[in-house]
Amino acid sequence: MSFNTYGTLFRVTTWGESHGPAIGCVVDGTPPGIALSEADIQVWLDKRKPGTSKYVTQRREPDRVTILSGTFEGRTTGTPISLLIRNEDARSKDYSDIADKFRPGHADYTYWKKYGLRDYRGGGRPSARETAMRVAAGAIARKILGRRVSIRGAMVQMGTQAIDRAKWDWKETAKNPFWCPDAGAAKAWESYLDAVRKRGSSVGAVIEVVASGVPAGLGAPVYGKLDVDLAAAMMGINAVKGVEIGDGMAVAGLSGEDNADEIRMRGGKVRFLSNHAGGILGGISTGQDVVARFAVKPTSSIAIPRRTITTGGKNTTIATKGRHDPCVGIRAVPVGEAMMACVLADHLLRHRGQCG
Amino acid sequence: MSFNTYGTLFRVTTWGESHGPAIGCVVDGTPPGIALSEADIQVWLDKRKPGTSKYVTQRREPDRVTILSGTFEGRTTGTPISLLIRNEDARSKDYSDIADKFRPGHADYTYWKKYGLRDYRGGGRPSARETAMRVAAGAIARKILGRRVSIRGAMVQMGTQAIDRAKWDWKETAKNPFWCPDAGAAKAWESYLDAVRKRGSSVGAVIEVVASGVPAGLGAPVYGKLDVDLAAAMMGINAVKGVEIGDGMAVAGLSGEDNADEIRMRGGKVRFLSNHAGGILGGISTGQDVVARFAVKPTSSIAIPRRTITTGGKNTTIATKGRHDPCVGIRAVPVGEAMMACVLADHLLRHRGQCG
Amino acid sequence: MSFNTYGTLFRVTTWGESHGPAIGCVVDGTPPGIALSEADIQVWLDKRKPGTSKYVTQRREPDRVTILSGTFEGRTTGTPISLLIRNEDARSKDYSDIADKFRPGHADYTYWKKYGLRDYRGGGRPSARETAMRVAAGAIARKILGRRVSIRGAMVQMGTQAIDRAKWDWKETAKNPFWCPDAGAAKAWESYLDAVRKRGSSVGAVIEVVASGVPAGLGAPVYGKLDVDLAAAMMGINAVKGVEIGDGMAVAGLSGEDNADEIRMRGGKVRFLSNHAGGILGGISTGQDVVARFAVKPTSSIAIPRRTITTGGKNTTIATKGRHDPCVGIRAVPVGEAMMACVLADHLLRHRGQCG
Amino acid sequence: MSFNTYGTLFRVTTWGESHGPAIGCVVDGTPPGIALSEADIQVWLDKRKPGTSKYVTQRREPDRVTILSGTFEGRTTGTPISLLIRNEDARSKDYSDIADKFRPGHADYTYWKKYGLRDYRGGGRPSARETAMRVAAGAIARKILGRRVSIRGAMVQMGTQAIDRAKWDWKETAKNPFWCPDAGAAKAWESYLDAVRKRGSSVGAVIEVVASGVPAGLGAPVYGKLDVDLAAAMMGINAVKGVEIGDGMAVAGLSGEDNADEIRMRGGKVRFLSNHAGGILGGISTGQDVVARFAVKPTSSIAIPRRTITTGGKNTTIATKGRHDPCVGIRAVPVGEAMMACVLADHLLRHRGQCG
Repeated sequence: MSFNTYGTLFRVTTWGESHGPAIGCVVDGTPPGIALSEADIQVWLDKRKPGTSKYVTQRREPDRVTILSGTFEGRTTGTPISLLIRNEDARSKDYSDIADKFRPGHADYTYWKKYGLRDYRGGGRPSARETAMRVAAGAIARKILGRRVSIRGAMVQMGTQAIDRAKWDWKETAKNPFWCPDAGAAKAWESYLDAVRKRGSSVGAVIEVVASGVPAGLGAPVYGKLDVDLAAAMMGINAVKGVEIGDGMAVAGLSGEDNADEIRMRGGKVRFLSNHAGGILGGISTGQDVVARFAVKPTSSIAIPRRTITTGGKNTTIATKGRHDPCVGIRAVPVGEAMMACVLADHLLRHRGQCG
Repeated sequence: MSFNTYGTLFRVTTWGESHGPAIGCVVDGTPPGIALSEADIQVWLDKRKPGTSKYVTQRREPDRVTILSGTFEGRTTGTPISLLIRNEDARSKDYSDIADKFRPGHADYTYWKKYGLRDYRGGGRPSARETAMRVAAGAIARKILGRRVSIRGAMVQMGTQAIDRAKWDWKETAKNPFWCPDAGAAKAWESYLDAVRKRGSSVGAVIEVVASGVPAGLGAPVYGKLDVDLAAAMMGINAVKGVEIGDGMAVAGLSGEDNADEIRMRGGKVRFLSNHAGGILGGISTGQDVVARFAVKPTSSIAIPRRTITTGGKNTTIATKGRHDPCVGIRAVPVGEAMMACVLADHLLRHRGQCG
Repeated sequence: MSFNTYGTLFRVTTWGESHGPAIGCVVDGTPPGIALSEADIQVWLDKRKPGTSKYVTQRREPDRVTILSGTFEGRTTGTPISLLIRNEDARSKDYSDIADKFRPGHADYTYWKKYGLRDYRGGGRPSARETAMRVAAGAIARKILGRRVSIRGAMVQMGTQAIDRAKWDWKETAKNPFWCPDAGAAKAWESYLDAVRKRGSSVGAVIEVVASGVPAGLGAPVYGKLDVDLAAAMMGINAVKGVEIGDGMAVAGLSGEDNADEIRMRGGKVRFLSNHAGGILGGISTGQDVVARFAVKPTSSIAIPRRTITTGGKNTTIATKGRHDPCVGIRAVPVGEAMMACVLADHLLRHRGQCG
Repeated sequence: MSFNTYGTLFRVTTWGESHGPAIGCVVDGTPPGIALSEADIQVWLDKRKPGTSKYVTQRREPDRVTILSGTFEGRTTGTPISLLIRNEDARSKDYSDIADKFRPGHADYTYWKKYGLRDYRGGGRPSARETAMRVAAGAIARKILGRRVSIRGAMVQMGTQAIDRAKWDWKETAKNPFWCPDAGAAKAWESYLDAVRKRGSSVGAVIEVVASGVPAGLGAPVYGKLDVDLAAAMMGINAVKGVEIGDGMAVAGLSGEDNADEIRMRGGKVRFLSNHAGGILGGISTGQDVVARFAVKPTSSIAIPRRTITTGGKNTTIATKGRHDPCVGIRAVPVGEAMMACVLADHLLRHRGQCG
């Protein structure tokens, strides 16, 4: 990943700011002949769309995607696919009270230091709005992977509240606004997050993304490892501060014998007896589920006042009002799925290139 | 990072297997005119060298580096620097007892699935031996960064035993074989690791790398984020399964107000009152310490027997004997430092390219 | 250059087909703070625009560019600049007579072999229409290079008719529809091209692009040579079959003493006495004019019938009617200028990155 | 191509200077399981080797290649292949007479301007010696392409003396020291070049490289065109100033009807009736012979004195003595073949990646 482009053979370049006329992406390297319509992409965008519950930002964006190139008669041509979403709710809000204040935890200070510019209107380029285009690109990546590979995400921790993994049921993720796989936790999170929101605070989250059906052999040694690219992809999602593969940080506390995923033949097939490795050994997929996890920090824009400075170098405080999520991690679930899909699609093509 | 090459402007390509005649790397994009001798590189290699204590592998490698190109009269020329280390202790061991068995937790199964080949002699390309070249490249990266930037690593957890962060003293890291910054923990770890080793087991670790003096403004939006490249760099180190920036996975449990790194003017300078963000906001450095952490899994090659299969598809067990580390994380400390240096050097040049 | 993206630090990704709803590009890596408006880009697009004389295609495209991202208050922000041009004259022509015939000299056969698809509507992705976005990107590249660097193109040969280089006057290029620097040749070409057009034929051309004011030191050794990137950039323009730097193919016939660009000190400055090298030695600019030349083949779509086959594998003939240029090389002049600008801008940033 | 690395999936990184201890390259991305020995590479190096006739430099280099990684039991493993050649004849010559003089036509002036350094010992990085590693990499590329693809090069013009193409016989290229396919021309060139050498001058050349058996469909649109990469590859060879595909610069003078390569079905197969396009349309291979041509300038180091300046800015003259080629183009023939092989191998893997 470099600059605003992701990938080696399956390549995604995104562009756009939260308060400009539109956002978009160019998806290059897609194999030809794949059935692809705007509806195929829209279904995933709708999953991520803001304004769908009281727990996510009330900004109203239809987020309707248009395909501007790269398909002919409903199939990919192998040339770049240009996708565009108009920003329809980028209303000219009154930002005068925060226009010259840096928001702690937000990128405005660092952008100002790097580029010498200040777009006071809102998130600008580092806005989470950019992630809509990752979801769109992920929809195409899923088409490349085909039905054999299934990619699903879930929130496994909200703030200090973790799920009970023994109660994991993928079907539950579609039944609550949190993508929570544990029905009991989902219920408890409602009042928990309500309280967070009411006191003007926000809360972080841990998201887990699981890809099933990934063939063994994807990835490469050293700097092209599958987990390297997954770590980069997940860390690149807004507000992410930690990434884990398989048992993640917890491997430090395991003994060698407990960490070893033992292997047996079962009915003529290779079977691993556990999956501490998250489906990746030496940077290459084992054929097991590929498991990635990432932590999203609490939304930086909160109503509780925080100490900060102005662009002119004066001490002040800031309290943000407006359309913001008490737990930005909720919307990160479909984004995490999309990045998993993009990484796997790129590695599938790269593997096919080198190994046939 | 792609394939066996890391970086955009500062580019490192490594090659070599643990049991081949040599390992090496090509470092491209180094600015011209930098004083560089073999001794400048050797000092860092010596820190990583196996065989320095009873806690690391007893393989005896002098790991003496040779510069084959890219310098003239003691200075870099701006052309590729080729570094080479001979494998002097790659003795022809008897591998017949494990030649056809897959080692659980090791890359031999996935390499076999991907490439259809089996180098039974040892680690091959995914061997930790490759990381010597990262350390060598890191030595050059440090030269690019200059004295203003200081990069230090420490082991903050061995197995289940974490340090007491209140007792952190960088000077301690040079006084024990674990790079441990807490003198008390270092003492306790000696007997802890001895016990692990004696029972034929192994143990994981958590490493923390801190870069001080990094100017604000390094990094880029979206896919070129500084933390994206750090995550990729750290996850690419052998046996790493989790990467954290700043508070890492723990941000999930923080409230928005606690996570916000508040800002004040102090003596005419910008001062952050905390560093939950690990010195990076929106993918760009803030000017604070850049803090990365990663978890290394326990060594896969252990004396305790584990169930596995043969290349012929028969159930069996495996118990590894030979030169191996009870805690491979120890040797990962200088490697983590080196990867931090490489990432920062690349971003320094990239920033200078775009922003002057 | 790879896929649909050009460049290392200054990166241009283009997308779009001649008969889709729009074409566009994403320009990444632009330094921040550069004044940039749509008018700055439009002026160069207007130079290239079809329909400006009877010698170029009569397709009527206003080619009005819109900036969708990457600027704020009239200045570049350092984030990706997305540019879009609607295809307004992509009328639904009747292609039934050629829908299943391959056009000799055209890309439809190879696209069909590679991608298994056939977009019978027109040029598709390989259409010269894509070059509008190169011109747009080139406008931004010129802004990066600043006023010190001037880039000018000229047609030096049309069909078999070369200019008299002794009569070269840059001012003439703006006074005739051919960008011809020799007033006499320009006059003669009018009737020459009229005759070509009337007999339903077409003719090739040679274009020369000269960049003045390029500082010494741009470029790099071996695979990053300035002339390597210029050769790639020019060869990538539609219908180009040959590229020359300086004396080009004619260097074969020179003696070593004639080819040597001798050097003298003049008024305290380094002066080359000739420029056979086209301003590039060892892949790095000398500070002289950078001179590139390329040959454009005659338009493949002509009224004179040619033998070909159908997609079903039957022998047939084809004669193209419709909106086409008798000398597609005319429109290649602004495109060649733009590619020169893109190459130099990328190398300027890369040089600044490595050498400060 | 960027910096010292060529390619996207098949990647070659070269390093080394003419007067350092060694030169080498790292070849990454090679498919696994290909039989590869040092002899497979040596055979091509021997073709290029200096000192084989009185017409090429009398520097005596055995140019014996060593494989340091990437193979196991005689087959490629899919990991990076490191190749090394010792510089055995880099004797410490007396350069004092030219140490502070810039050689016209040579890269020493531009390297000095870019990097601020002067390696007075000889060619340094831009030395033609680097091309030995291209030949070595090309040998591996040929293995990837397999026996179906045959790549052959020939010198078609020496100085002002062109061959008679009607007398082209590939077998002749092995029978004279010039790779000349026209026996009559080869004979005439002997005395021609002798005269050039005796008067202390040098002469340029045109080389043609033809790849037969290339499948249709290799290449990609716009910036990933096969001819773009060929142009870059050939222009990157030392002293090359012009590159042509098919009819090259001569297409300018062709009419549309003459330039069109007409198509017929013959015995159920597609047959082109001519090959003006050099086997590439729209950047993608047609299945015909791929034909590239390039012009090499006369050797810059000649005995005839030329005017130049010193590093201190004083006017002077220079006349080079020592081991140099009167026609450096001779040694460029195997290099051109190698670059053709590298480009095709990379595109073969890329095509397989995207299109399966």
